[in-house]
Amino acid sequence: MTTGKQLFTTLQPDGKLTLEVAESQFHEPKGNQVLVKMEAAPINPSDLAILTSAADFETAEYAPGKVVATMPEPFLSGQKARHGQRLPAGNEGAGTVIATGDSDAAKALMGQRVACVPGHAFSQYALADAMMCLPLGDHSAEVGASSFVNPMTALGFVETARMEGHSAIVHLAAASNLGQMLNRICLEDGMKLVNIVRKDDHAELLKSQGAEYVVNSSAPTYMADLRAAIAETGAFLGFDPIGGGQASDGVLKAMEQVAVSRMTEFSRYGSNQHKKMYIYGRLELAPTILTPSYGLDWSVAGWLLTPFLQRAGLETVVRMRSRVQANLTTTFASHYKAKVNLEQMLEKPAITDYRQMKTGEKYLVTPWG
Amino acid sequence: MTTGKQLFTTLQPDGKLTLEVAESQFHEPKGNQVLVKMEAAPINPSDLAILTSAADFETAEYAPGKVVATMPEPFLSGQKARHGQRLPAGNEGAGTVIATGDSDAAKALMGQRVACVPGHAFSQYALADAMMCLPLGDHSAEVGASSFVNPMTALGFVETARMEGHSAIVHLAAASNLGQMLNRICLEDGMKLVNIVRKDDHAELLKSQGAEYVVNSSAPTYMADLRAAIAETGAFLGFDPIGGGQASDGVLKAMEQVAVSRMTEFSRYGSNQHKKMYIYGRLELAPTILTPSYGLDWSVAGWLLTPFLQRAGLETVVRMRSRVQANLTTTFASHYKAKVNLEQMLEKPAITDYRQMKTGEKYLVTPWG
Repeated sequence: MTTGKQLFTTLQPDGKLTLEVAESQFHEPKGNQVLVKMEAAPINPSDLAILTSAADFETAEYAPGKVVATMPEPFLSGQKARHGQRLPAGNEGAGTVIATGDSDAAKALMGQRVACVPGHAFSQYALADAMMCLPLGDHSAEVGASSFVNPMTALGFVETARMEGHSAIVHLAAASNLGQMLNRICLEDGMKLVNIVRKDDHAELLKSQGAEYVVNSSAPTYMADLRAAIAETGAFLGFDPIGGGQASDGVLKAMEQVAVSRMTEFSRYGSNQHKKMYIYGRLELAPTILTPSYGLDWSVAGWLLTPFLQRAGLETVVRMRSRVQANLTTTFASHYKAKVNLEQMLEKPAITDYRQMKTGEKYLVTPWG
Repeated sequence: MTTGKQLFTTLQPDGKLTLEVAESQFHEPKGNQVLVKMEAAPINPSDLAILTSAADFETAEYAPGKVVATMPEPFLSGQKARHGQRLPAGNEGAGTVIATGDSDAAKALMGQRVACVPGHAFSQYALADAMMCLPLGDHSAEVGASSFVNPMTALGFVETARMEGHSAIVHLAAASNLGQMLNRICLEDGMKLVNIVRKDDHAELLKSQGAEYVVNSSAPTYMADLRAAIAETGAFLGFDPIGGGQASDGVLKAMEQVAVSRMTEFSRYGSNQHKKMYIYGRLELAPTILTPSYGLDWSVAGWLLTPFLQRAGLETVVRMRSRVQANLTTTFASHYKAKVNLEQMLEKPAITDYRQMKTGEKYLVTPWG
């Protein structure tokens, strides 16, 4: 048994959400498992779903290595399935393999620095599946910490677009780490990308990175700009990490207006151009609003990495992983606003900052820092 | 040239919606066309999209064979593509072929009573495509008038479910003509059907027709009843003609709760059971609201008959048509609340009644009545 500090999150039926750092024991790795001494783990929006969700951290009770906040409705009832469960957190991270199970794949990683996806990366140690580990060679743990979720998601969007017969994509909140990565991939692959951002400096950032189509949803000309970009690129497929409100609705409207402008005859059912938005995150927890303004040839669906990878199949996943590994410091590079250790992660200044998920302001957890 | 009365609908950019009966000329049918002396045409919800939409018929100006109403925003701007266009109306109907083009398919229909899909069925005459005509034999025009839209839509739902690997369906507003038809088809085909209605007498109606799973969305036990029906049938695919509000949202929630109750381990992403709702109508014009309460493995999409038939292919369409023809007075029988001629169709009592699209209160237009 190896002992180390680990973060846990517990939501009680009465609405108390407790995040705490506690001593944990990690058993010896078996079979395909490896035991990783974790050195760095990013706080991704997908981690915040169980870390902060909609809880009130302004009025929370803070103690060293612990915080207790209140979860409002309907989010409390909505997470009924986890009530009372003490859950680990942290999808991904990087560290050094210090023990392995007896499979050849596991043993081959002994002593190596790897990126991994243990699901409990906010921890000093983690048990990970050797098949999901990416050897980092000479790269630091910081360089490799985000080498799974964002890279595979961005590549997954391009794969999804190709599978569904598209040669152009619309992306919302496009200046994020993920968005910048997607922009680099699309430039490399010749996939046209319409980047939607909310701020001028985000637009400038993407343009400075070679983005050809960037529209600002805060501009009074937003809908016209978006229509022009859609008309030029033929983008009728989009990816939306915002989820709540009318972000996707606006894109579907613009797509429809472009399609209708190309029709020679009026149809009461709208255009016969299929329009599709994938919602892959919930930066806004408000309901998604879809107005009846784009006929009936549309679809809005959730997009999640794991089911996508299962659908894509092993060969595609291996090809994607190899591409990430070969381009870790270029196409797939991530940037961090701040580093925190496990205790600092639960202090008010940090928690109230990273929970906002501001574009380009990602935190990195260094559990031995 | 043949002359007869026909209904037209015109929406001006200033918001005036004019419905009027006018003399029209119908040219001689060419090629595959047939000229049908129309005897009966149903007013379907899909017709109301260009007939009434959201216009105000309480304060409208009524004259014989004419009504002028005001279209409010955002529906006025939303229909920009039709501004100023004088459009015919009426998807389907039945009548007798009195002239044909010179193709063999057209000539074979001469003198026969047929059901047809001309798109201008609210008329004394219509030019229809022989390939889309269904010979009615000894059946009356009233029996055959609704033999396309509802039967093919109901059959289309079952085909869609099978294509996507489902053996159970959820249906909203299930006591409609279409819903009763779907219930009969599902009973014949062994497809499990969860019928959602809003009134007790509608629930009784469906039960009296052999429906096994009927839940009332007005009951305080609605969500529990729905969960029980979904758990028993395994229905994770639904069809929703309401569109606006939270009708589909509630079904997705119930599906997710059933799926989560079967999971052995908590997942922050919700269940990995894919949940899908097709919106095929807009009985409510309000926006569709989707709450973040069923993870990311869901999809909501428009469903429209024409693109479905194109996707399904000719062989499937022919099989569906034959089944309709063989069972016109049983499985595919429709019922009407009232008959009106073209002028009566534009009188206040009729228009304010049929525009409500109340379950089981469909109108039939008899243009020579």
